[in-house]
Amino acid sequence: MLLSRLHAPTLKEDPADAEVISHKLLVRAGMIRQVARGIYDFLPLGLRSVRKIERIVRDELDRAGCQEVLLPIISPAELWQESGRWELYGKELLRLRDRHDRDFCVGPTHEEVITDLVRRDVRSYRALPINLYQVQTKFRDEVRPRFGLMRGREFVMKDGYSFHTDYDDCRREYEHMRETYARIFDRCGLTYRAVEADTGAIGGSLSHEFQVLASSGEDLIVSCDACEYAANVEKAESHAPAVDVYEDGEIARVPTPDVGKIEEVSQFLGEPPQRFIKTLLFMADDAGVVALVRGDDELSETKLKTAIGCDVLRLAEDGEVERLTGAPVGFAGPVGLDLPMYVDQRLAGSTGMITGGNENDLHLSGVAHERDFPEAKVTDLRVARAGDGCRRCEGGTMQEHRGIEVGQVFYLGTKYSRALGAVFLDTEGAEQVMEMGCYGIGITRTLAAAVEQNHDEHGIIWPMSIAPYEVMIVPVKWSHDASREHAERIYKGLQDAGVDVLLDDRDERAGVKFNDADLLGIPLRVTVGPRGVEAGNVELKARDQGEAEEISCESAVAMIAERVARERTA
Amino acid sequence: MLLSRLHAPTLKEDPADAEVISHKLLVRAGMIRQVARGIYDFLPLGLRSVRKIERIVRDELDRAGCQEVLLPIISPAELWQESGRWELYGKELLRLRDRHDRDFCVGPTHEEVITDLVRRDVRSYRALPINLYQVQTKFRDEVRPRFGLMRGREFVMKDGYSFHTDYDDCRREYEHMRETYARIFDRCGLTYRAVEADTGAIGGSLSHEFQVLASSGEDLIVSCDACEYAANVEKAESHAPAVDVYEDGEIARVPTPDVGKIEEVSQFLGEPPQRFIKTLLFMADDAGVVALVRGDDELSETKLKTAIGCDVLRLAEDGEVERLTGAPVGFAGPVGLDLPMYVDQRLAGSTGMITGGNENDLHLSGVAHERDFPEAKVTDLRVARAGDGCRRCEGGTMQEHRGIEVGQVFYLGTKYSRALGAVFLDTEGAEQVMEMGCYGIGITRTLAAAVEQNHDEHGIIWPMSIAPYEVMIVPVKWSHDASREHAERIYKGLQDAGVDVLLDDRDERAGVKFNDADLLGIPLRVTVGPRGVEAGNVELKARDQGEAEEISCESAVAMIAERVARERTA
Repeated sequence: MLLSRLHAPTLKEDPADAEVISHKLLVRAGMIRQVARGIYDFLPLGLRSVRKIERIVRDELDRAGCQEVLLPIISPAELWQESGRWELYGKELLRLRDRHDRDFCVGPTHEEVITDLVRRDVRSYRALPINLYQVQTKFRDEVRPRFGLMRGREFVMKDGYSFHTDYDDCRREYEHMRETYARIFDRCGLTYRAVEADTGAIGGSLSHEFQVLASSGEDLIVSCDACEYAANVEKAESHAPAVDVYEDGEIARVPTPDVGKIEEVSQFLGEPPQRFIKTLLFMADDAGVVALVRGDDELSETKLKTAIGCDVLRLAEDGEVERLTGAPVGFAGPVGLDLPMYVDQRLAGSTGMITGGNENDLHLSGVAHERDFPEAKVTDLRVARAGDGCRRCEGGTMQEHRGIEVGQVFYLGTKYSRALGAVFLDTEGAEQVMEMGCYGIGITRTLAAAVEQNHDEHGIIWPMSIAPYEVMIVPVKWSHDASREHAERIYKGLQDAGVDVLLDDRDERAGVKFNDADLLGIPLRVTVGPRGVEAGNVELKARDQGEAEEISCESAVAMIAERVARERTA
Repeated sequence: MLLSRLHAPTLKEDPADAEVISHKLLVRAGMIRQVARGIYDFLPLGLRSVRKIERIVRDELDRAGCQEVLLPIISPAELWQESGRWELYGKELLRLRDRHDRDFCVGPTHEEVITDLVRRDVRSYRALPINLYQVQTKFRDEVRPRFGLMRGREFVMKDGYSFHTDYDDCRREYEHMRETYARIFDRCGLTYRAVEADTGAIGGSLSHEFQVLASSGEDLIVSCDACEYAANVEKAESHAPAVDVYEDGEIARVPTPDVGKIEEVSQFLGEPPQRFIKTLLFMADDAGVVALVRGDDELSETKLKTAIGCDVLRLAEDGEVERLTGAPVGFAGPVGLDLPMYVDQRLAGSTGMITGGNENDLHLSGVAHERDFPEAKVTDLRVARAGDGCRRCEGGTMQEHRGIEVGQVFYLGTKYSRALGAVFLDTEGAEQVMEMGCYGIGITRTLAAAVEQNHDEHGIIWPMSIAPYEVMIVPVKWSHDASREHAERIYKGLQDAGVDVLLDDRDERAGVKFNDADLLGIPLRVTVGPRGVEAGNVELKARDQGEAEEISCESAVAMIAERVARERTA
């Protein structure tokens, strides 16, 4: 492609609303443009990288025995009502009515639609297992779309669904998909971790997220430095470090005028935060619930939700806290509260603790778990942290990373197949409910994550396999005949060798050309300059390396084509 | 692919709601399934053909210098308000509100979105011309979705848009796209006509439709048997055959009790239909308008709309006719009516005609155009017919065909660029409005049209280039070891040769296998039978031919691969 003909309008300035680097660079490199909040145009360069990611995904899935289908973007409410998600999904589900006033939604995911397809046509164990996927534009009406493609509303996703006769076969496919996903992200040239994760709105009981590591990632993950274990902190199990044990004693009323927050009371009473019980009130499917963690720990809502087993969990509002505890926010405590209570395992058997007294300006000291609130259910509620011990191995220590979730695999069990009646006849002729797994990859989010992980102050640094073009030829002086001829010869030669090559045929200053080349992030740059050409040389520079090397004009095509082919599949 | 693993659930019965053959066969062959009215799942076989059509389209467009982009499916109302189509588009535009109560629509076409993209980034004549396209799922909320993929609501479309400095360059690209479209449909293996057409809701002043010829087509087109001229009948110009001239005379009141329709009055008065003036009342942008054609002719609403130059045209309702003419439906006539009138050129200067008297049960005879309604504007309003003379050449005669519109090219002029302010600086530094063209191909409709044109009583007959698989190997007896071994060897050999091949590895009766092979319509069938294998032969049969030929097992792979490669690009 000639750069002068390519619609890749580069910008010098960052877009005003861009908060993260991938958003800034993808816009500046002329790869995307915003149409509305969280909704983007993909320009030719951006789309080329999207298609390359799609091609890797399709290639690996087809090889893994999956079959591609295409389900509708607009799906009827009836199917969502059958699964119960029409009510549960909330405002992220973009609902609409057609001209005949029938309810539909713009699909954010397709468990219902695919289960409907399979229940109609698959009736025998002989047709199972089956694994169907699609690559499709989806829509989630995020309340605060931001970070460009990282948290957009409209996005391209690969979603796949598998159906099985039994649990074991479904688990086998889950592992198979987990390995396939690892190959996909390897081939995309990304550094990532597969981490244990919560199942969220999709449901099911087992899930792994694929997290591309990047300091700008929204997700916090921990991984063991000794074994394979890695998990989203919300979900991660770990050994918290041992803490001081406080002497047992009587409960005493401690006036704490106007100090409600743990840090304030801690300072006011001169006691360390770990001596406090943090009492948090939640509404679980609209009923009040109490969660208790140590004052220096953070509560994982994911763990709490799993412990309760509810559909919708949210922090209680101020008025609800007052109604449930009889005291303003900041003074809640477990003693004497008649509500379902969940207490973090780290507080099991604790004594001599301080917590709210369920009266304004009052705390209680000397509180003991087994004596004062024995009815609270002991469970793991604490967010894991760097430095915690690993629970899956001996002696491992957890480390923290920031990650961008680009893929997720779920074991769904029979959640959807039971609700929609996806059944089959087994070898005995008896009706059974299918077991299901589901598997997603955010294609456009992977594009953004690749940029978050691979860039410098000058621009993007594409991995070869997903770069919009693999080689960019930059003649320093377009008006110099010999340079132009050499550049065009190498351009033609690389095209014939099947390399995706861009020729900067603009009559611009060398500095402008080099800046654009760095911004676009094409992995290999071939600089053709008057002096080099006279000596029979051009300069080859990898975008991710500082040094350029001189190579002879004659061998340039063969050498570059070989290198591209190698790095493309690396 | 092994047929036993392919998700292609074939059906013996036609779906109850299917009216056209492509709908029946695509469902029965396990290629599509209905999710809601006009909304379909594409199963693996159906999607493979869709992708092959897409690949041909992309290949030809890229070669023609177009660049692929991807615009959002959900687009903001603001852009449609700028062009005025938010109000004009009507109920086919699926509108919705996001969680913040902002208006959006599911894009049925993308003139506004692409013009917005280009106006933001293209500012100089140097960046023009530019031709951008996308392949995308679109939605039009048809009032009566039917005929399967032929008139669905959700469908895959290629839409492209070009921007130019001037009219001449835009017309050059229009012709270039017209030629490119011809190559695309040639490569799809379809018999079609490029016909002059109306511009409809898209607008502009010049358009060609690509019509796949099929007796089930919804569109009626005429073409000249002597020259290249072809057009949609709604739009076609032709020489109508000469008709009798009736003697001039006085107007007379003719009582016609209870007979209002032309055929009835014709019979009642014993006068031929061509002696009548058919008077039709329309509402053009909510104002009453009269259209007059000969009693034996059909009115083209398209021609009438063009003549009036209105945005919305519809037949007047009964109440409106009574209000405007003072008489019930059936008794309207031009004499004495104080409304804008348009009269077909065939009635220019006519005398001695019969028409309604604008009173109940009354007609007038002896009506003369120039004397009795000279204010009516003479224009071409009649639908062309087989047998009419060609207007573009000497001596040509028009023929009628039925067609399915699969593509359309439009010269848009400055309709959208002016409304949205897509301007550029010309060589003199003066601001100019861009000229635009737009170009669409219904990808999924092309799939359906291919089936409408290519099938027999047993099933589909795919053209090689868009067949889901090119070759199907049918071992007559799967349990026969030698047959199975030969079948698998040929299967493997064809796969290695890059042929898309399906192996029917099911342990079914030969009849069942042959029926499914015919239904699926794979172009070449290789039958492997015990007796043939003993003699070292297999049978090769083309789906579109009656006779099979014996070929030797040894040469089978090379011979078939060569034939597939040839027919694929034929």
